[in-house]
Amino acid sequence: MMQRKETKHVPANHAGNGFYGQDIISVNQFDRAKLDYIFHVADEMRVMVERFGSADLLQGKILANLFYEPSTRTSSSFMAAMMRLGGQVIPINNVQYSSVTKGESLPDTVRTLESYSDVIVIRHPEMGAAATAAHYAQKPVINAGDGVGEHPTQALLDLFTILEALGKVDGLKVAMVGDLKYGRTVHSLTKLLVNYDVEFAFVSPEMLQMPSDVLDVVRSNQRRPEGHDYSILEDVHEVIGHVDVLYVTRVQKERFTDLAEYDRVKDQYVVDDALMQRAKERMIVMHPLPRVNEISYTVDNDPRAAYFRQMRNGMYVRMALLASVLGKA
Amino acid sequence: MMQRKETKHVPANHAGNGFYGQDIISVNQFDRAKLDYIFHVADEMRVMVERFGSADLLQGKILANLFYEPSTRTSSSFMAAMMRLGGQVIPINNVQYSSVTKGESLPDTVRTLESYSDVIVIRHPEMGAAATAAHYAQKPVINAGDGVGEHPTQALLDLFTILEALGKVDGLKVAMVGDLKYGRTVHSLTKLLVNYDVEFAFVSPEMLQMPSDVLDVVRSNQRRPEGHDYSILEDVHEVIGHVDVLYVTRVQKERFTDLAEYDRVKDQYVVDDALMQRAKERMIVMHPLPRVNEISYTVDNDPRAAYFRQMRNGMYVRMALLASVLGKA
Amino acid sequence: MMQRKETKHVPANHAGNGFYGQDIISVNQFDRAKLDYIFHVADEMRVMVERFGSADLLQGKILANLFYEPSTRTSSSFMAAMMRLGGQVIPINNVQYSSVTKGESLPDTVRTLESYSDVIVIRHPEMGAAATAAHYAQKPVINAGDGVGEHPTQALLDLFTILEALGKVDGLKVAMVGDLKYGRTVHSLTKLLVNYDVEFAFVSPEMLQMPSDVLDVVRSNQRRPEGHDYSILEDVHEVIGHVDVLYVTRVQKERFTDLAEYDRVKDQYVVDDALMQRAKERMIVMHPLPRVNEISYTVDNDPRAAYFRQMRNGMYVRMALLASVLGKA
Repeated sequence: MMQRKETKHVPANHAGNGFYGQDIISVNQFDRAKLDYIFHVADEMRVMVERFGSADLLQGKILANLFYEPSTRTSSSFMAAMMRLGGQVIPINNVQYSSVTKGESLPDTVRTLESYSDVIVIRHPEMGAAATAAHYAQKPVINAGDGVGEHPTQALLDLFTILEALGKVDGLKVAMVGDLKYGRTVHSLTKLLVNYDVEFAFVSPEMLQMPSDVLDVVRSNQRRPEGHDYSILEDVHEVIGHVDVLYVTRVQKERFTDLAEYDRVKDQYVVDDALMQRAKERMIVMHPLPRVNEISYTVDNDPRAAYFRQMRNGMYVRMALLASVLGKA
Repeated sequence: MMQRKETKHVPANHAGNGFYGQDIISVNQFDRAKLDYIFHVADEMRVMVERFGSADLLQGKILANLFYEPSTRTSSSFMAAMMRLGGQVIPINNVQYSSVTKGESLPDTVRTLESYSDVIVIRHPEMGAAATAAHYAQKPVINAGDGVGEHPTQALLDLFTILEALGKVDGLKVAMVGDLKYGRTVHSLTKLLVNYDVEFAFVSPEMLQMPSDVLDVVRSNQRRPEGHDYSILEDVHEVIGHVDVLYVTRVQKERFTDLAEYDRVKDQYVVDDALMQRAKERMIVMHPLPRVNEISYTVDNDPRAAYFRQMRNGMYVRMALLASVLGKA
Repeated sequence: MMQRKETKHVPANHAGNGFYGQDIISVNQFDRAKLDYIFHVADEMRVMVERFGSADLLQGKILANLFYEPSTRTSSSFMAAMMRLGGQVIPINNVQYSSVTKGESLPDTVRTLESYSDVIVIRHPEMGAAATAAHYAQKPVINAGDGVGEHPTQALLDLFTILEALGKVDGLKVAMVGDLKYGRTVHSLTKLLVNYDVEFAFVSPEMLQMPSDVLDVVRSNQRRPEGHDYSILEDVHEVIGHVDVLYVTRVQKERFTDLAEYDRVKDQYVVDDALMQRAKERMIVMHPLPRVNEISYTVDNDPRAAYFRQMRNGMYVRMALLASVLGKA
């Protein structure tokens, strides 16, 4: 998918980063060099926003923000990213009600929208939709979530948050907690983290354990000759004192056929002040949001709570991606 | 609520107006000095728009326009205000369909959106929602209506319209007509008008009279040592010849349990050419819009009809507020 | 409807093109001189976008994009057109859910929106709505489709596409294929094409033939002393070898009371590779989109397929119209 689109002319000075004109569809596109590059640009975006609020790198550029399902958080983040770079946004938020999709194929919709815009962000309920859109579009397409498929910019912002908060990724112990079976977020983040020397702890009810294909990636020697150490646990208390990153996801009642089982386990996956007292002094708690009750509100004031910084970092990472695929990073 | 947010750094040159970094939640925040200031800035905005169309005061700034219930008029007005100052807008119009609010608390939504933006405008069906949002946000929050609570920018634009049309507010006779019991607009405007030397006439069916808590504000000597004169009437014809401002609101059939009573009174609250012939030559007719049939369309061409000028003035007032809370007025 | 709005001051240097301050409501407003002008400007817009991406001709201007029914394609096209000229857009996409229209008349809505904006684009399900809006608005109004009425910018972009692809319009043979009875698009395009020396072929099932009032326009000598040659056919194969333009519209099953009749004719109106092999080497296939199955996807790669270029040209034509009515072309 990182294959350069044939119709794109690539100026020599853009050859270096390899993102110009490309689609961002999957975390599998990113090796350590590409991650280093994007996070370097994202950090520059952070500095720029903190000092000046915005820039005019993408002035005159237009983003078609194509959301087939509502996601205010992700949609707003991409809009803000484009706007802070001086670009403009065509928001397309209720595609389901629109004639554009009444019987119209995704390829036709995408080819129409790229007639108007310079880059397309797509959110779609079906796995593979972003890749299909990218296949037909001449302009860069960024995947903002395709059903049970991928949500690569979420994984990138998660990893960037770890890097910004703890200064490095190598050598860290990362615990992922909650619903690891259905959580797209933890799958994608894991696939990015194997580019680094990290140790994993997968903490979940037995029926919501990390799927074997993700564990295969952790065990494999594709990214590191020796693979990665990992443990599988049911109780977060066993690891809370050792981890550098506690990545929390919601355990949804709907996943359980046996409600007694749900009642038995649910409190093991709530992060509260008592749990935080047992955590290291220098570590972070992350959550992709929205949360319901899996992190107590009292934890919000704990400096180790990083979930709102994740939102801010999401904007910086998306700024970096937009600027890079448009050749302006 | 005008309490300065602790985390905000306030440059010395912004200290003067007292709005920088603040929330706009209630009309009670505004004393005469603050009203003078905002109307002075709003008038400068009017001159600027009439001459140049727009400015770049807020270039690079982003407004999150968060509407939990639809209100095209208010939403569009804030968008235009931000855009005419060179800023950009993230419109969030269908929050009810979005995952951002599926179980997510208002504080979390607000803290997410302020990660992306510089100022938040919020419209919410529940009283107090804007104050809650302001409490949790570090960035300025402007109340665009919170249910039966307040709609301070509407009251400000109403007052600004009186000032622009008649050159002053002191010494005026102001009649409010229609549904004074449930009309949030007339309550808020009354609370602003007590900062001036005005005489009130409250004209409504008996069952839709101005509530006693608003009358208490009129009678009190909090703003003026002697309080304010006011009269309570049922028939607009009794005052039409004397008033400088006729502020009209709709008498809704739904409010009446006795439809015979509705049929008896409804025509007393319709402003038509015949009524306008009995009005002073120099006065204005106002209405918060939308109107249904409480003002005849033939009155639109009367130079005393000010209700479309109210819309225009709403943009100027909101420009003044946005620029002020962002420290650029 | 091209009558200049009385309240508009028209600077001398804008007198030339005749569009400044005007509404765009109907194709009937356009004679050959006006078409030449708009297409000249649209071509300049194309060159500008291809070279620079955008311009700042309409910087500080605001478009109110008022859509009473969803149409992502047209809405996005107008938004992109405004943005590529440096202007900003207030998108109003779900008017049906909004208080602005709960009992509010179209004139009041339009007068409110023009308080905020510099130009209004309106899409409405009722014929005549755009003319009504234009009548009440002081600011220019552009019709983006009013039910079974008109959709003039679609017809203009269709004609511009013919001109750009084939270098001229005079002397061409134009076949319109499919549902010619209910197709607003082909009616409007025909009314524009009579300004040129073209020969028409109207190809449709008998029950979906071009209405007599459109045929009257074709036959009349209003635009050309000798009227225009035309033929009425049922089978596209009879003309495919001769036409310069094949304009395809969908034959909808819903139009047929006799489904056997539908099954008999439907394949005659599908454009596929076999049909294209019989077409001239230099000709174009057009379609207003969305298509369902009336053009095979394999035709998309044929250089004669012009339907995605139509989308792109739509943006250029709308840029030309926006710039012209705002006096900046």
